[in-house]
Amino acid sequence: MKTAVYRKSWFNCAHRLHNQNLSEQENQDLFGLCNLPNYHGHNYQLIVKVVGYVDPISGYVIDMKILAQLVKEHIEKKFDHKNLNLDTLEFKNLNPTAENIARVIYEILRPKIDARLELGVRLYETERNFVEYPAELF
Amino acid sequence: MKTAVYRKSWFNCAHRLHNQNLSEQENQDLFGLCNLPNYHGHNYQLIVKVVGYVDPISGYVIDMKILAQLVKEHIEKKFDHKNLNLDTLEFKNLNPTAENIARVIYEILRPKIDARLELGVRLYETERNFVEYPAELF
Amino acid sequence: MKTAVYRKSWFNCAHRLHNQNLSEQENQDLFGLCNLPNYHGHNYQLIVKVVGYVDPISGYVIDMKILAQLVKEHIEKKFDHKNLNLDTLEFKNLNPTAENIARVIYEILRPKIDARLELGVRLYETERNFVEYPAELF
Amino acid sequence: MKTAVYRKSWFNCAHRLHNQNLSEQENQDLFGLCNLPNYHGHNYQLIVKVVGYVDPISGYVIDMKILAQLVKEHIEKKFDHKNLNLDTLEFKNLNPTAENIARVIYEILRPKIDARLELGVRLYETERNFVEYPAELF
Amino acid sequence: MKTAVYRKSWFNCAHRLHNQNLSEQENQDLFGLCNLPNYHGHNYQLIVKVVGYVDPISGYVIDMKILAQLVKEHIEKKFDHKNLNLDTLEFKNLNPTAENIARVIYEILRPKIDARLELGVRLYETERNFVEYPAELF
Amino acid sequence: MKTAVYRKSWFNCAHRLHNQNLSEQENQDLFGLCNLPNYHGHNYQLIVKVVGYVDPISGYVIDMKILAQLVKEHIEKKFDHKNLNLDTLEFKNLNPTAENIARVIYEILRPKIDARLELGVRLYETERNFVEYPAELF
Repeated sequence: MKTAVYRKSWFNCAHRLHNQNLSEQENQDLFGLCNLPNYHGHNYQLIVKVVGYVDPISGYVIDMKILAQLVKEHIEKKFDHKNLNLDTLEFKNLNPTAENIARVIYEILRPKIDARLELGVRLYETERNFVEYPAELF
Repeated sequence: MKTAVYRKSWFNCAHRLHNQNLSEQENQDLFGLCNLPNYHGHNYQLIVKVVGYVDPISGYVIDMKILAQLVKEHIEKKFDHKNLNLDTLEFKNLNPTAENIARVIYEILRPKIDARLELGVRLYETERNFVEYPAELF
Repeated sequence: MKTAVYRKSWFNCAHRLHNQNLSEQENQDLFGLCNLPNYHGHNYQLIVKVVGYVDPISGYVIDMKILAQLVKEHIEKKFDHKNLNLDTLEFKNLNPTAENIARVIYEILRPKIDARLELGVRLYETERNFVEYPAELF
Repeated sequence: MKTAVYRKSWFNCAHRLHNQNLSEQENQDLFGLCNLPNYHGHNYQLIVKVVGYVDPISGYVIDMKILAQLVKEHIEKKFDHKNLNLDTLEFKNLNPTAENIARVIYEILRPKIDARLELGVRLYETERNFVEYPAELF
Repeated sequence: MKTAVYRKSWFNCAHRLHNQNLSEQENQDLFGLCNLPNYHGHNYQLIVKVVGYVDPISGYVIDMKILAQLVKEHIEKKFDHKNLNLDTLEFKNLNPTAENIARVIYEILRPKIDARLELGVRLYETERNFVEYPAELF
Repeated sequence: MKTAVYRKSWFNCAHRLHNQNLSEQENQDLFGLCNLPNYHGHNYQLIVKVVGYVDPISGYVIDMKILAQLVKEHIEKKFDHKNLNLDTLEFKNLNPTAENIARVIYEILRPKIDARLELGVRLYETERNFVEYPAELF
């Protein structure tokens, strides 16, 4: 049977929810406070999940030091203390909902992790609202 | 692939574990302290899970404001500050274990959420004891 | 300088807020949902604080095993899985607000702890509402 | 002796640290990532502390429903989903560090709470960094 | 549909990561700080998951009092306040990574729980690093 | 009035409670499981508190980046993944109770922080047991 390992990290961003293909009124109706023009922000909590067989030499599914370093290099440095809408290419034309941020993080990390390992992303936007992608791995 | 979204809320209730089809002695043997006659209580923490595809217009699986409102209207208002055994129809003849409460919440919310979305309920009775229904979605 | 030590524990109770010297209407106006007649309940989280000088032999302010035992014997066993209004002498005629429960716990424990040590009680009624007694020690 | 009561709430903001009386270079040197021009953000967690004597009628230091309503009306509505630097008068000319935000919240709430009660503010900017004002009350 | 129930507990251990089949240098390269010779330690948080159908008499998947007792007897008493490498047979020749500890706990508990119930183990080594076994049940 | 700022960090250690001036039997009687010879361990959570006036230029009591760096350099690097009894000079002849560890951390940090600022240390040995030094600052 397989084992799942999880690593938690954090990054703090400004964002607003806005779909450029909708009118101002449609954006306000759909996103409410989250659409306010000058941005608000969150302490995002990220939990990366990796699933695979335990290596008999190391006793690891994946070396957590390496996983932590990957997340630091490719996710924290990229997003921490940034404005997701203004400062990142990924969300120039993509609405930075928690769902979309989780998928973007998945797509950044997926090619950097051994293909024999499954990958999943849990992202807390607030303590009360969080998402997982892909749902099939959770 | 699908995305899962989660929404956390709370409600505080009195309850006792008791099966009307068992004798007093059988109830005491089975439920111990939880069977004490004058009720005890819990701060229940509820996490509702909804699984589906992300809508490309909104970037949402489901609008969290609507999900939060559904939970407030149909769960929090119904159960918060109530005695589950005495004040609710659902538990008049159903023992209010965490397992049963989770299933009741699922059955209340299921018809109110788009049938294309999957629904699950995680319920913390205490920090140390919690349940999920249906287990297949978690 | 002195050191403070803290010990966390839990107990789960039913209660309602009600002052027998007020009319039904006054009770409802003052306590709202908390006054509902059939009780509701909470997972109370208790943190006992003891302040004193560190004993050079043990390196302890107070032996945590003994403090934990005192709390278990005199607080948890007394209140856990009880109805505060119906099952305890302390709240027969005293409204079981968090403030009053904290003071009652303080008064139960105070004579059982060495008089050279200061004692304080922090009580969480919910994650969002908590109290401390005496405020001067916190 | 007095009792302290605490009420927890949340609000989510964008901000950047910036002192208009310093040069761009000085701002960068002093505030680092927190000075990035397009803002970042936080889930601020606010804990309001009120200290006083317990009222013998209600068993309350202050009615938590009223305290919660005050915080909702005057703090959450004002700051939640806003850009502190751009959307609020308070931080037009005041650097929105956690220290300054805590003092601003104190000054907003102080005149709205009975002068016989002491008031304090604990503010978490992140899970790892938090502040209290005035320190003398904690 | 099935229901999952979870029970949380704790145990505190010393350990070091070390594979006896590797050289000292290989161990240092692979495990870094975790290989330091005099051991370090953790507060392990254990969450046991049991999945099955709710019994209509008790309203339980499994009696939590019995599950808690099993964990206390066979896991906490065995591992708490021990040195995993020196004091336990299980890790005499098995590297005590979180992955391996989770599997060992699973194998100890599996024969003690009704075969109609599925069993899973979640183990937090730190707040930031945790594992689940078997991944297929989570 | 002054403001207090807090910074949270972690380090993981092995230790055992043992007073070299007591007999083996006295050590066992006094410290129980904590005296077991092969060590156990903890994830220590450290919260450093600094109290002072807010600087009008920076809006800071102390630059959190500098405080975090001090803790990393002088506490985390020194204690993390170590055996407190065997690997550190501080606890060669001092029993590593939470009370003593907190005081040692205070004494390491005190000379490194501006004398106009007050310093305090909160140390969690487990989620249920924690200490503060000096108690007068909390």
